[in-house]
Amino acid sequence: MNIVEIIEKKRDKKELTEKEIRFFISGVCGGSIPDYQISAFLMAVCINGMSDSEIAVLTDAMAKSGDSVDLSYIEGIKVDKHSSGGVGDKTTLVVAPMAAACGLPVAKMSGRGLGFSGGTIDKLESIPGFRTSLSEEEFIRFIKRDKIALMGQTKNVAPADKKLYALRDVTGTVPSIPLIAASIMSKKLACGSDSIVLDVKCGSGAFMKSLDDAVLLAQKMVTIGERNGRRVYGIVTNMDQPLGNAVGNALEVKEAVETLKGKGPKDFTELCYIIGSYMLVAGEKAKDTDEARKMLEASVSDGSALEKFRRFVENQGGDPSITENYGLLPSAAVKKVLISPCEGVISYIDGEKTGAAAVSAKAGRLSKTDKIDFGSGFVLLAKIGDMVEKGQPLAEIYAPDEKSAEEAEKRLSEAYSFSEAAEVKPMLLAYTDKEGIYFDKNKRC
Amino acid sequence: MNIVEIIEKKRDKKELTEKEIRFFISGVCGGSIPDYQISAFLMAVCINGMSDSEIAVLTDAMAKSGDSVDLSYIEGIKVDKHSSGGVGDKTTLVVAPMAAACGLPVAKMSGRGLGFSGGTIDKLESIPGFRTSLSEEEFIRFIKRDKIALMGQTKNVAPADKKLYALRDVTGTVPSIPLIAASIMSKKLACGSDSIVLDVKCGSGAFMKSLDDAVLLAQKMVTIGERNGRRVYGIVTNMDQPLGNAVGNALEVKEAVETLKGKGPKDFTELCYIIGSYMLVAGEKAKDTDEARKMLEASVSDGSALEKFRRFVENQGGDPSITENYGLLPSAAVKKVLISPCEGVISYIDGEKTGAAAVSAKAGRLSKTDKIDFGSGFVLLAKIGDMVEKGQPLAEIYAPDEKSAEEAEKRLSEAYSFSEAAEVKPMLLAYTDKEGIYFDKNKRC
Repeated sequence: MNIVEIIEKKRDKKELTEKEIRFFISGVCGGSIPDYQISAFLMAVCINGMSDSEIAVLTDAMAKSGDSVDLSYIEGIKVDKHSSGGVGDKTTLVVAPMAAACGLPVAKMSGRGLGFSGGTIDKLESIPGFRTSLSEEEFIRFIKRDKIALMGQTKNVAPADKKLYALRDVTGTVPSIPLIAASIMSKKLACGSDSIVLDVKCGSGAFMKSLDDAVLLAQKMVTIGERNGRRVYGIVTNMDQPLGNAVGNALEVKEAVETLKGKGPKDFTELCYIIGSYMLVAGEKAKDTDEARKMLEASVSDGSALEKFRRFVENQGGDPSITENYGLLPSAAVKKVLISPCEGVISYIDGEKTGAAAVSAKAGRLSKTDKIDFGSGFVLLAKIGDMVEKGQPLAEIYAPDEKSAEEAEKRLSEAYSFSEAAEVKPMLLAYTDKEGIYFDKNKRC
Repeated sequence: MNIVEIIEKKRDKKELTEKEIRFFISGVCGGSIPDYQISAFLMAVCINGMSDSEIAVLTDAMAKSGDSVDLSYIEGIKVDKHSSGGVGDKTTLVVAPMAAACGLPVAKMSGRGLGFSGGTIDKLESIPGFRTSLSEEEFIRFIKRDKIALMGQTKNVAPADKKLYALRDVTGTVPSIPLIAASIMSKKLACGSDSIVLDVKCGSGAFMKSLDDAVLLAQKMVTIGERNGRRVYGIVTNMDQPLGNAVGNALEVKEAVETLKGKGPKDFTELCYIIGSYMLVAGEKAKDTDEARKMLEASVSDGSALEKFRRFVENQGGDPSITENYGLLPSAAVKKVLISPCEGVISYIDGEKTGAAAVSAKAGRLSKTDKIDFGSGFVLLAKIGDMVEKGQPLAEIYAPDEKSAEEAEKRLSEAYSFSEAAEVKPMLLAYTDKEGIYFDKNKRC
């Protein structure tokens, strides 16, 4: 087999065989295919696409390029969740204890944040004492006993994806739906769950700007899952502005706890119920999403979800009393208030600019070695659709020093757009599984 | 400026600015853009194409990446010719002395052959004593006195093209009309002529298989020339079989001399008159191609073209008496005759297979260090449209030893196809200049 012929086939929009795709991934990992040939191939895929069979094989080859995680110690159906990421997305902090409270075991492996959206591990580590570097024995013990544990990824999962992603990042080949789907799903396949709930963010603040693209990505991942023996539930959710009100690690932990107490922001609470519902259905803990939602709501109103969160924090070395005393969480040295420059309705809060402002406030990192200030970030006081007066506070800004706070304020102010009226979209935009696509609950397309 | 953004623009089919293209070429030459980014860019161009303005700027940037040749010592219009190459193409050996005999100065810089089609320098060096490593002083002196000289390329012409071509060769990005046009024209622009006659070969034995592609390539090169202040005449000629009868260095020299004596094969003679005519028109030595052709025919019938060739050979250290005594040219040790396996009409003689057979016979080289046997090659005794009997000789094969001869015979036999009838196409398939395209002399499209 010859890599140039494989590149030429893809350049000419022909379908690759399973053998050719596996030869490519093995050459990528083994180092026999040089970077300049890999990147020519990636560009050809980026422009010409891939068939469902090609994507399914590519994903499997990538998944098998490294270690596999064994979850067989958990009885029943293992459900994982994944979100395509967005500013203020602290869903795991709420959904994991809710689902565990409803009887679903949640064995979560997470990564650190890089760039504009924070990572779950960073958020949890803002809780004093909390550690994510569990031993495998601890991880298993916590899940068996309390149905919940979260650890940082230690295994060499899908190294082919790491290699390909590093090249895609510098060769303009990131925005390819087949490559994005294969990248996400290769890691999920290697992580050993039977069923995966995928939350694809859609909107101005997300990587997928159009509903069509977001639905297509969700569909491709459902197909990849089916072809590789996994059940995938793909949901597309609205991301025209940051999720909830809090952006920044300790601030988001506080908002997550409030949500577990039933006092969270409406949009974020809704998203948690949506994702949690599909997880319970996937794990066969509920017969449909209506039943699942009632179970989740009950876990909040009876306090069992919050109790599960406290147990989770305590297991992993953190102080559970933070849920009653937010003063135990890190706080920032400087606070500023962003003031509305005009009267009007907020029509748009740019996700990238909000994320960049969070980095300015030291709540996020751009390079792996950047230090995060856990107490920094924002609390948004008004969101899309809200009418504001000139001079009215739009957001609280928290930062470690005056200079960072000023820079963050300037950047955050650029994120807002105002108009005379604004459309507030529902949280769930579409849902897709192997049966088809739904754009609303009762209508299949 | 950012190379990733430039790659993304081309990926998204957007037009690059002049500044972006020059930034790219300067980064390619300076080494600041790594190969994996160059190859991603090349693949994007290969699939998405380039506008005429983009191609013109790219070519100019490539032309200016190295040395420029100064031909200002020649008075009047300097005309160059280029052929996209093919098996048995010895046109320069005939056209250069014919044109010089008609008063057009011919200052030719040539390369060595690599792969299936031989190079003009190799062919000339099969003449005992002939040398192409002239000093610049000699080159100028010969042209001023005799209007003809040919030397090997010594300057660093278009190094950007060398770098890009090496990558294209291993990344499946060779067959891109914008990149092919820029590659050829960058070298022509750097070589300092005012006007260029381009012979694009079309047919099963050529790189351009379809007439549409060949015409498009010719048009693009005409446009590049016009936009960079050069007059380009693009002709598309038939290449369904080797040109003329002789393939191999000394064998081709002999055929070229026969053609200068008016006794050459019909197809090859016709091509020489076509190319020569456009050269004389380009150099304003004739008012149109009809007048030019009469001048060229006269140079053959009055012996002045042959005399110019002898002068040319003598100037460059060769023995001019080879034109009267072919026994002075190198000859091969072994001769075989390829026999027709059937009765029928020859419908096709595959160029690639003929070229590969020539390499087997040691008449061509695959790597730069391969040694050539100057006397080796073939003389085709029957061509497309000829009816042959079973057992009739199809070709004479010359090789340095029995083993090479047998391998060449086997390969050459695979090049022939037979049927009940065959179409013999005209030599000139299309002509294009800045005014438009002609598919026959009197009809413009």
